[in-house]
Amino acid sequence: MQLHLTTWQEVETYLEQSSGIILPIGSTEQHGPTGLIGTDTICAEAIARGVGEATNSLVAPTINVGMALHHTAFPGTISLRPSTMIATIKDYLTCLAKAGFKKFYFINGHGGNIATLKAAFSETYYYLSEINLPHAEQVQCKIGNWFMCPSVYKLAKKLYGNQEGSHATPSEVALTQYVYPEFIKQAPLSEKVASGYPIYSASNFRSRYPDGRMGSNPALATPEHGQQFYELAVKDLSNSYLEFINAE
Amino acid sequence: MQLHLTTWQEVETYLEQSSGIILPIGSTEQHGPTGLIGTDTICAEAIARGVGEATNSLVAPTINVGMALHHTAFPGTISLRPSTMIATIKDYLTCLAKAGFKKFYFINGHGGNIATLKAAFSETYYYLSEINLPHAEQVQCKIGNWFMCPSVYKLAKKLYGNQEGSHATPSEVALTQYVYPEFIKQAPLSEKVASGYPIYSASNFRSRYPDGRMGSNPALATPEHGQQFYELAVKDLSNSYLEFINAE
Amino acid sequence: MQLHLTTWQEVETYLEQSSGIILPIGSTEQHGPTGLIGTDTICAEAIARGVGEATNSLVAPTINVGMALHHTAFPGTISLRPSTMIATIKDYLTCLAKAGFKKFYFINGHGGNIATLKAAFSETYYYLSEINLPHAEQVQCKIGNWFMCPSVYKLAKKLYGNQEGSHATPSEVALTQYVYPEFIKQAPLSEKVASGYPIYSASNFRSRYPDGRMGSNPALATPEHGQQFYELAVKDLSNSYLEFINAE
Amino acid sequence: MQLHLTTWQEVETYLEQSSGIILPIGSTEQHGPTGLIGTDTICAEAIARGVGEATNSLVAPTINVGMALHHTAFPGTISLRPSTMIATIKDYLTCLAKAGFKKFYFINGHGGNIATLKAAFSETYYYLSEINLPHAEQVQCKIGNWFMCPSVYKLAKKLYGNQEGSHATPSEVALTQYVYPEFIKQAPLSEKVASGYPIYSASNFRSRYPDGRMGSNPALATPEHGQQFYELAVKDLSNSYLEFINAE
Amino acid sequence: MQLHLTTWQEVETYLEQSSGIILPIGSTEQHGPTGLIGTDTICAEAIARGVGEATNSLVAPTINVGMALHHTAFPGTISLRPSTMIATIKDYLTCLAKAGFKKFYFINGHGGNIATLKAAFSETYYYLSEINLPHAEQVQCKIGNWFMCPSVYKLAKKLYGNQEGSHATPSEVALTQYVYPEFIKQAPLSEKVASGYPIYSASNFRSRYPDGRMGSNPALATPEHGQQFYELAVKDLSNSYLEFINAE
Amino acid sequence: MQLHLTTWQEVETYLEQSSGIILPIGSTEQHGPTGLIGTDTICAEAIARGVGEATNSLVAPTINVGMALHHTAFPGTISLRPSTMIATIKDYLTCLAKAGFKKFYFINGHGGNIATLKAAFSETYYYLSEINLPHAEQVQCKIGNWFMCPSVYKLAKKLYGNQEGSHATPSEVALTQYVYPEFIKQAPLSEKVASGYPIYSASNFRSRYPDGRMGSNPALATPEHGQQFYELAVKDLSNSYLEFINAE
Repeated sequence: MQLHLTTWQEVETYLEQSSGIILPIGSTEQHGPTGLIGTDTICAEAIARGVGEATNSLVAPTINVGMALHHTAFPGTISLRPSTMIATIKDYLTCLAKAGFKKFYFINGHGGNIATLKAAFSETYYYLSEINLPHAEQVQCKIGNWFMCPSVYKLAKKLYGNQEGSHATPSEVALTQYVYPEFIKQAPLSEKVASGYPIYSASNFRSRYPDGRMGSNPALATPEHGQQFYELAVKDLSNSYLEFINAE
Repeated sequence: MQLHLTTWQEVETYLEQSSGIILPIGSTEQHGPTGLIGTDTICAEAIARGVGEATNSLVAPTINVGMALHHTAFPGTISLRPSTMIATIKDYLTCLAKAGFKKFYFINGHGGNIATLKAAFSETYYYLSEINLPHAEQVQCKIGNWFMCPSVYKLAKKLYGNQEGSHATPSEVALTQYVYPEFIKQAPLSEKVASGYPIYSASNFRSRYPDGRMGSNPALATPEHGQQFYELAVKDLSNSYLEFINAE
Repeated sequence: MQLHLTTWQEVETYLEQSSGIILPIGSTEQHGPTGLIGTDTICAEAIARGVGEATNSLVAPTINVGMALHHTAFPGTISLRPSTMIATIKDYLTCLAKAGFKKFYFINGHGGNIATLKAAFSETYYYLSEINLPHAEQVQCKIGNWFMCPSVYKLAKKLYGNQEGSHATPSEVALTQYVYPEFIKQAPLSEKVASGYPIYSASNFRSRYPDGRMGSNPALATPEHGQQFYELAVKDLSNSYLEFINAE
Repeated sequence: MQLHLTTWQEVETYLEQSSGIILPIGSTEQHGPTGLIGTDTICAEAIARGVGEATNSLVAPTINVGMALHHTAFPGTISLRPSTMIATIKDYLTCLAKAGFKKFYFINGHGGNIATLKAAFSETYYYLSEINLPHAEQVQCKIGNWFMCPSVYKLAKKLYGNQEGSHATPSEVALTQYVYPEFIKQAPLSEKVASGYPIYSASNFRSRYPDGRMGSNPALATPEHGQQFYELAVKDLSNSYLEFINAE
Repeated sequence: MQLHLTTWQEVETYLEQSSGIILPIGSTEQHGPTGLIGTDTICAEAIARGVGEATNSLVAPTINVGMALHHTAFPGTISLRPSTMIATIKDYLTCLAKAGFKKFYFINGHGGNIATLKAAFSETYYYLSEINLPHAEQVQCKIGNWFMCPSVYKLAKKLYGNQEGSHATPSEVALTQYVYPEFIKQAPLSEKVASGYPIYSASNFRSRYPDGRMGSNPALATPEHGQQFYELAVKDLSNSYLEFINAE
Repeated sequence: MQLHLTTWQEVETYLEQSSGIILPIGSTEQHGPTGLIGTDTICAEAIARGVGEATNSLVAPTINVGMALHHTAFPGTISLRPSTMIATIKDYLTCLAKAGFKKFYFINGHGGNIATLKAAFSETYYYLSEINLPHAEQVQCKIGNWFMCPSVYKLAKKLYGNQEGSHATPSEVALTQYVYPEFIKQAPLSEKVASGYPIYSASNFRSRYPDGRMGSNPALATPEHGQQFYELAVKDLSNSYLEFINAE
């Protein structure tokens, strides 16, 4: 069930049997010469919907802009500041918690979101107790990073070895190729690719990683790989979600 | 062109010939017993993509949660506070303006967004001049409300008369039926429907409008109507967009 | 009754018979070569006091600085940012609502305030419910724009036709002449006056509207006209206020 | 010259010979059974206008709501939170400094404003340098508290001795009686009046000071005294203002 | 008892017999050519610990960065903006008040903190009532400025006369020499020292006070003086603290 | 060199040869029945000073309150909200970066700080470029978590095995015993200790972990172990710091 395709009365009925909800979160940021700007969002959304179907649970609209300030020296990137993102996540969770939701499972497509998401959860738990929400104590949030699923990680290693890299990776590009085969991009990719530099400011990032890739060779990606990644991620995260909502 | 389906190099190329971008903005809020919670988002997104194609211009990822605090007494609604939404819009526009975009055209699906959007534009113009963005003076924002297009308004009047109402309207429901025919909902609709009350707090809203509709009869909607609305809106807003980016 | 001229015990007594209050809000911004910088404030304050007398209701101190960022390229303009104005209005309403006020009627002299005021109302309703104010649900806000009263609009059209324009209008200038006949200003006004440009940044505004007027000819204003506008506005808004506080 | 009664072109001319401006700031708060809620505002505004005339300088619109949170348990009080007031003062000063003003002289009627005003000045100096305002280094703010003028203090001591107290004082009440003789209030005043308690929360304040007075006997006030206070304050603060704007 | 050297169970026990806590607050800012950057923090911390011992009360970790924006043109200075400091103090007090503390006694080493601290107290009292903390009404904050203790002031006058000055004073330098005799600094001090200029922006401050001192001659300081200041301050503030927590 | 024990002129000299600074950051939070509330701060501060000496570099005053909202149901805990902590870190870094510092190395004693610190770094890089700081691009931040140093981790495993746990661990308690042997606490520790629960709200945390420990047996700690941990951490982090400041 996708929240945007339900009615409020269906949500009311859903809440009678579950207080869990899945929130896909991605990013709108450069992904190298051949990666789609929406890569993180596309992956998170597709997998979240797969998990929603597999577990018969509700999936919120995708948060498609996240924390990507370090990519903003490349055109097309849109990012929230961390403080804005905290306010945004707090607003989302407050609305949903007031309606009766208690278990919030974020399916995340972007490593850069993790720190701010965690900060936002802390901020929100505290806030919900300050507004005296009756079930504030029961509100729980968890992040499921599809790209960190053991099965996904293993397959990426097997298929790409070191050429997986850490941004604009063949695994995430493959997944977008599976979802959008009509948008597979071709562009020259230099054989040498920067890697290993820490992430600081946006302009520093662009000077270190001039084409946007971090150690990756996305030319290895295929839609067939993408399907495999998709299926592994859905399976792993479905189990993770069920475990989460069934825990006390 | 949809931003999330392009690469940063394609955006760079695009910016050589245009500094305009279309930003669809909707809402995640109750739309009565038969209207989808994503109605405003679905409409804005579909029309924005239509306008993007018609005008060969770039379409940003859809802002799918807006200002809907007055609907939050119905489960499933998610809303930003106005102050959060201002920060969010400011972050979006700052990123894009730094990259070289100057003309921001918001295709809006929700009346409740208008006031906060306008406030956000004012806040942003001022901010861009304070951070000394070289082309701050040239940044321009405009809202295109599809449901206020003269041709749309006229057709709604002709098809539904007074039963168009002002929330969960047959016209917007029709448009979602056209986009998602597999999600046409059936639910009992009382013949009598509340209308005419001003909008105050969320709990007041729910006590005034107990099933979420405001004077509307969405049972009149058909996917065929939806297609008509879609085509009219795309045409009108395409003209409006072109006029906007061609103005000095 | 003007709040600043009462004692707290008189307010306590007032609250026994009414929970309504009138809040005049203007702006401190350029009004062309002959318009007073306080035009919007002067008009809102005078009319609000008139309505207060006519309806025997309490009038708060005038909010004399509003949202006028687009005028800040002209010296003498003072503006809040929208986010500051939202915080300000929230603080005002929270204090007054805690004291027992429920119906807040803003008599507004500046079109540029409307969007931010509406955003502030939404923010405040939500906030009052979060701090668990017992009567949060009953708090209601409404804006009465004197310059949009049908009778005012009609008279302006009749007296000035197209030369009414939309900023530094003869109608508002006339009203200030009625209130402050000793401050009627003379300055050369070019016959040609800019009009029709949308409002973006402050510097853009000044380059479009070099003397500050928007399509208006304030030389047509007379104190006698001002008196007529004053009386029409007081009458219309008094009715509007009474209707508002008497509604459920 | 009162800013709200000038045109932007007059301000432009004024700036050629002076970069100083006077900003009256008061409060909207209970002043005991016979003191007007606007006492602090009325005093600050009247004196500021007197100083403006005496020194031929510009007077901004009165900031009529300040930091009075500790009075909010009495109905009719309106207060900004300190953080809101800092944002407000920063917005005022930023607008005016961009226009060319450099010397900001606040004529203050309320002791409770002082701490937050000082905090706001620090915040603003820093901010103006961060937005790279060319003359940021020359911006200077100063507070002139009329009730702390040596001559005022001396007269109050002479006329009222210990009965001057520290809130709802006969001296400030007298000044309002001089300005608004038609609003002299009568109400029973208990002979015993609380005094000496520190100021903490609003509810604590009201329980300590049940009628709102702090050690004062406002029944001693007369309009004639008020005139004396007015004249002394205008003289002292005019000198102070001139010294301020003439200093480097 | 120093909070950081206790366990939570010891704090629980402490709260059974006292709801008071001492919070040392200093600053990290230039103190002239021979004064330590931590001068204000060192003094506040040492004295607070002395008071804690003398009164058998709990001492919180020292707030070692305060409001010192006007010193930021000298390297090594770290300052919070006033708005950040208000948020910080509010967070501290909220945590401690929720745990049962009611009386907060700040031992302050920096004049520049006073205004913002007072603003923070007002903000916090109000906030605690809005989150419905049961004992919000009983929360009380007080500042004890060691350098303003009558006995301290008298001794400084006697030892240094006018050469005490108002920043980088021999009295505070002496106190740091007593606490850290191994860090007594030697540097050339011009005989002439700036004094009497008001405090505005950081760059203005540095141009007025080129070596950082304000009218002081810290060369007069000795560790023995420091001990005397320390003992006087501990005695005076211990009395002040006991009076504070014993008051209703 | 400890910043609080230097003069501004010494800092100026230091900046001629290094633009690096070490910032110790801990937390003020419960650490079980025998752990000091200042455990994280004590460890971070001691190690940071050791690293400062070993590398001849500057150490800022310790940030002794961090992000510990989940511990706030235990008395004595003080925490910033993540949004406050971001503002605080941004203020620190802005002051220091303006003075010429470029490399910020945080020595961290609390896992709960990591997410918010990272968010704060992103927020700050972006902010520094918006205020047009000339060397904004060169500003770099890095976190060194002493408890994650490979050598530390290995020793803890060897000494305590599974009884190391994850909060109020014997390793951190040992380190505080080494620093403060006079504050070694004794209290009954149940043999069974909760472990494995995820961290959500403060009240949830306390109900899961009733005595505050997370799977640890701090009774195993000795001051001698503490010294070993101290020395290992200083060695590892000194290397890490040097590598950081020597990298481009």
